[in-house]
Amino acid sequence: MTGTAAIVGTGFVGRAWAIAFARAGWRARMWDADPSVPEAARGLIGELLPELAKNGLLGDASPADVAARLEPCRELETALDGVDWVQESAPERVEVKQALFRDLDRLAPDSAVIGSSTSSIRPSLFTGDLPGRRRCLVVHPINPPYLIPATELVPAPWTAPETVERAREVMLAIGQSPIAMARELDCFVVNRLQGALLEEAFRLVDDGFCGAEDVDRALRDGLALRWSLIGPFETIDLNAPRGIRDYVARYEGMYAGIHEDQKRRVDWSGPVMDRIETERRARLPESAIPDRIRWRDRRLMALMAHMRKARTELGD
Amino acid sequence: MTGTAAIVGTGFVGRAWAIAFARAGWRARMWDADPSVPEAARGLIGELLPELAKNGLLGDASPADVAARLEPCRELETALDGVDWVQESAPERVEVKQALFRDLDRLAPDSAVIGSSTSSIRPSLFTGDLPGRRRCLVVHPINPPYLIPATELVPAPWTAPETVERAREVMLAIGQSPIAMARELDCFVVNRLQGALLEEAFRLVDDGFCGAEDVDRALRDGLALRWSLIGPFETIDLNAPRGIRDYVARYEGMYAGIHEDQKRRVDWSGPVMDRIETERRARLPESAIPDRIRWRDRRLMALMAHMRKARTELGD
Repeated sequence: MTGTAAIVGTGFVGRAWAIAFARAGWRARMWDADPSVPEAARGLIGELLPELAKNGLLGDASPADVAARLEPCRELETALDGVDWVQESAPERVEVKQALFRDLDRLAPDSAVIGSSTSSIRPSLFTGDLPGRRRCLVVHPINPPYLIPATELVPAPWTAPETVERAREVMLAIGQSPIAMARELDCFVVNRLQGALLEEAFRLVDDGFCGAEDVDRALRDGLALRWSLIGPFETIDLNAPRGIRDYVARYEGMYAGIHEDQKRRVDWSGPVMDRIETERRARLPESAIPDRIRWRDRRLMALMAHMRKARTELGD
Repeated sequence: MTGTAAIVGTGFVGRAWAIAFARAGWRARMWDADPSVPEAARGLIGELLPELAKNGLLGDASPADVAARLEPCRELETALDGVDWVQESAPERVEVKQALFRDLDRLAPDSAVIGSSTSSIRPSLFTGDLPGRRRCLVVHPINPPYLIPATELVPAPWTAPETVERAREVMLAIGQSPIAMARELDCFVVNRLQGALLEEAFRLVDDGFCGAEDVDRALRDGLALRWSLIGPFETIDLNAPRGIRDYVARYEGMYAGIHEDQKRRVDWSGPVMDRIETERRARLPESAIPDRIRWRDRRLMALMAHMRKARTELGD
């Protein structure tokens, strides 16, 4: 399944979406409130494509194929004309989304899905008064979506079930891994799970049981290796002879015991932050952060290339 | 640094330790309460070594080199004679550990570190009355330690700091990633982090926001990809322009808001378990669990081979 997507807002997130759609064979129209940005975005994407190709992350397409599917537009009306999908990635302010969604809903064909990349704003807060609110929802990527497949689909109370289903199909078609929420909730799924783990991490360091690097080792060299293959529910399903019910019968008592401690919240910006920041800056000076981000992205690209190969060779 | 390790208890965990020590050049004496088990364990390890070699996970050693370093012993006294390290992996019952540690402390050289593989018993509960309690601690692997490097070092109140430091050096020398806790705590670090995330996962499914597979996608295709490279603290340190303090200034309010909900515990074996089990068994019948575990281990082996290669080629 291919079609035409309008990428509305072509900063870091919008550019990443343009790559995700275009490598899957979609035409990607690119529009931004600043009319000089889409052309520049096409240039930045062009620089990235060869490295993606080298890692096998463009599928059958060449960098030139993908680049040819990008269409910078100066007028929003032109960008939205006849599209199948609209992906809004404007700044994270509710009044910006409200104003923009009014235009998107007015200009996009009735049959188009309109998704917002917001990572934290409930869709009901900026789609409620739109005639076409049934086809609006949050489609939240974990950045960058051309490397990380998980994508949260969050409906407002009035989003039609067919909209969510259509969004799920489109995300699967472009190679994303959709998490379809039944209804909206603050922070959605991914950040709630991250927050729960971070709360325990800050508590462990604040109580002086271990340092920040120990927590990072626990995930990087431990838990996350399994979770990156099978997720936390499948992990415990495979960790007791008769599956997850058996696991819970054996270990729930242990976890229930520690949950009592987990009710106590530690102020992340309190004294614990001095300790964690000192530890982090000793490992990575602030001036080295941009280089480390580029390293992370190279490693992430290599990891995704490995995952693709391993799925083919060893199954999924 | 190499030496001789006594592997005490040669079931699944003990066998995995024998591999971890022997591939790093250590001699691994193997003893079990059932005297027929160590010979059988050597056979099982021998079957596994070629696949580890194929994935580059034996370092410079050949399967024959590693196998030649395994020494099944019938007598505990022989197994412990002159060793540098003792790794106990007996059944998880405190009275078993108490009785065994009395023998280990009596028979091992004064200079040897004595580690227990227990995943849940505080070391103070089975080392308190030993003359050599200063050199005893928990050395908890995330199974299997020849694939997953994270290893928790948990001291009792009387464990000497030099013991923890020596354990850290030995673990680094054999290629593990030590998490050195400052003092003991129920569930240690890894299971507390896992527990915190699982509590939120069960809550999300119980409240009907998403299914178990959605949670698995959120980690497998999302959070765990980054965490497997850089851990959760480095992840947020790289996710704001000026590092972790900047990230916390921007997002702590959001996380503090959801922590209120996270105080409410869901009974994992209540109605939510019916839903999760139905979903899991539809994806994986109980009879297919053993095959799936073998698949997981093959994928984990390939993943660790990738990580090793990527560290060499792209840095760490």
